[in-house]
Amino acid sequence: MNITEYFSSALKKIKAEGRYRVFTELKSSPSNSPISVNVVTGKNVVVWCSNDYLSMSKHPEVISALAQGGYEYGVGSGGTRNISGNSHAVVEVEKEISNLHNKERALVFTSGYVANQATLSTISKIIPNCVIFSDQNNHASIIYGIKESGLEKVIFKHNDAKDLETKLMGYPLSTPKLIVFESVYSMSGSVPPIMEFCRLAKKFNALTYVDEVHSVGIYGREGAGMCEELGVQDEVDIIQGTFAKGYGVIGGYIASKNDIVDSIRSYAPGFIFTTSLPPAIANSILTSIRYLRKSDAERLALKHVATKLKSQLNKARINFLHNNTHIVSIMIKDAVTCQSVYKELIDTYGMYVQGINFPTVPKGQERLRITPNPLHTDEMIDHLVTSLVHVLKKFNVDSYLP
Amino acid sequence: MNITEYFSSALKKIKAEGRYRVFTELKSSPSNSPISVNVVTGKNVVVWCSNDYLSMSKHPEVISALAQGGYEYGVGSGGTRNISGNSHAVVEVEKEISNLHNKERALVFTSGYVANQATLSTISKIIPNCVIFSDQNNHASIIYGIKESGLEKVIFKHNDAKDLETKLMGYPLSTPKLIVFESVYSMSGSVPPIMEFCRLAKKFNALTYVDEVHSVGIYGREGAGMCEELGVQDEVDIIQGTFAKGYGVIGGYIASKNDIVDSIRSYAPGFIFTTSLPPAIANSILTSIRYLRKSDAERLALKHVATKLKSQLNKARINFLHNNTHIVSIMIKDAVTCQSVYKELIDTYGMYVQGINFPTVPKGQERLRITPNPLHTDEMIDHLVTSLVHVLKKFNVDSYLP
Repeated sequence: MNITEYFSSALKKIKAEGRYRVFTELKSSPSNSPISVNVVTGKNVVVWCSNDYLSMSKHPEVISALAQGGYEYGVGSGGTRNISGNSHAVVEVEKEISNLHNKERALVFTSGYVANQATLSTISKIIPNCVIFSDQNNHASIIYGIKESGLEKVIFKHNDAKDLETKLMGYPLSTPKLIVFESVYSMSGSVPPIMEFCRLAKKFNALTYVDEVHSVGIYGREGAGMCEELGVQDEVDIIQGTFAKGYGVIGGYIASKNDIVDSIRSYAPGFIFTTSLPPAIANSILTSIRYLRKSDAERLALKHVATKLKSQLNKARINFLHNNTHIVSIMIKDAVTCQSVYKELIDTYGMYVQGINFPTVPKGQERLRITPNPLHTDEMIDHLVTSLVHVLKKFNVDSYLP
Repeated sequence: MNITEYFSSALKKIKAEGRYRVFTELKSSPSNSPISVNVVTGKNVVVWCSNDYLSMSKHPEVISALAQGGYEYGVGSGGTRNISGNSHAVVEVEKEISNLHNKERALVFTSGYVANQATLSTISKIIPNCVIFSDQNNHASIIYGIKESGLEKVIFKHNDAKDLETKLMGYPLSTPKLIVFESVYSMSGSVPPIMEFCRLAKKFNALTYVDEVHSVGIYGREGAGMCEELGVQDEVDIIQGTFAKGYGVIGGYIASKNDIVDSIRSYAPGFIFTTSLPPAIANSILTSIRYLRKSDAERLALKHVATKLKSQLNKARINFLHNNTHIVSIMIKDAVTCQSVYKELIDTYGMYVQGINFPTVPKGQERLRITPNPLHTDEMIDHLVTSLVHVLKKFNVDSYLP
């Protein structure tokens, strides 16, 4: 086989499985949000699948801070944190984050993915005999970070403290351990028994590492996330988060004890060898965090829209995954049907809900994942639900039970 | 040992080796560049180690495009490329890049590091029996990407086509191969025999992968990089680059044949599972690329400053690594001395040249890495050289030969 043919054959394979991805090109604007233009058709679509959960990417103060940051500092940082890229603005973000999470120190990465991958892969350099206990539904960035670490990994059942305990008991107390989980699971909106995990950690000589990317900005009194909301923030050892979802910008971070963060800063290639975030971006992040520490309006509005949407779906007899969070997933369980439902919704009904297929979810667990937003109106909710009824019926999806 | 003690002991280790890093906090502004404020001392410093090689991060058009992008599109993209994050602006960047490099397609990543790591680690999913031939001086992002791929790796001597050929001959012709190298090496400024590598690739059933991060924007008629400058752009199979250095923003990319890029798009976790670049950032990138395709002034000015600096160093009998590029490295060969030289330069002479130590360079190869910039004046060059004479003499560095 000619070497370039490997690439064509890799593409044929995913096309045959019905999971070749064609990205939906969008043009969005602060004045029309949550409506965007579908660039290919030129038509307006109501976006129902953005992780810009609070629409902070469109917030005038966050945008102004970006522009002002640009005029004041320039755009790019020009270097790694060690070589001329340690801008005042990024240092300020780290101070704000450590204060927000009530931790000694924070470290900013170029993305949440990189924060997970760089931190977890580096644990083996610091604790060579560490065993990692990882929830079976953890995100790809966690999975690849752990894989890269080369450490022994034990997978426990999703959100199952009993199973975790059984597995922890299989190792000597003296073995250092890390328990890794998310506070809000992206694809189901489920929340683990965090307090129970922390109790087990203390009992079994383990540290806890919680991925809060789908909750920071969105939960807690100051938007510090689900751990703040549940009053367990001081119990977890390492908090990881993002600036790209609730805060509407880009970038990721960890926050923890000084020595833990300083070690990752000193040993993690994914932190050391990459250009730091632009100071203009850092200025925008800072404004978004500070704004959401003071303002509850966006969180309350999101809660209102999510509650309303769930209630309308219930009335319409559309089944979705139950949870106490803002993520609304409707199971489709087939890649091709999932793609057809998405296409019908966007082409006929003018609403964009991306069908989620492998590798984002396991095969057979394809779904529509709907993310409400403070800017969705009652009319938009009604229109979404009535459209879903038509479309799910048309494609015989058993999440609709008339 | 208590689990948190692993972290303190990891820190003690690097402190004992004299390579604990204290980042220099800077406040920069477009109006004062290349002078920044050293935040800790409050004093001005002339920055001589930025990878914002052409000062495009401070260019009024690039800054305006950021601000305008923010007002027009908002800040963050709100999702992965597949789930609502495929902004028109980022699609435009990919079109511009594929056109710039005369390749069929391009793919944007959140950073150059991620572009390397995600692409190289994914090769094993597409060509499971690929053998990777990697230059011994390749960047960490390449090294970790290859490591993550789990593929067999053969390291060849730096820029050595003879050694590469010998090593290629050790494998059957039918074995698919990838030859990975950089077009300008960051820490030495050296340039490989690219045409020769491409000839070997064709002979031995290999693809070529060239990291152009230290050359895009800076070399070639339109700033496409060193391959364009040398007239070999059409010979290399995969070009990888960054928007964070020559272009002054952030982000990275690959450009290649359609099937190659489409496979990476479809299989690479580091691309699939991360929020795409903010459309405001993409707008700024687009402006910077287009500007540098038309304007030669910045490239010529950089060349002028680099030539002048090298000539002054020669006159002052300060030894540096010879090359045909803009990177000026003075060998110090000791971590502690390197740190002292850096400190003396910034504290006493008001100029910032970061000392480069392990793991950025191997132990014993510590150096000052000076990066000239179009904004450096003749006076700044003179002051740098006379200061270096004093400081290198004071610390008995044998790169100074009076």
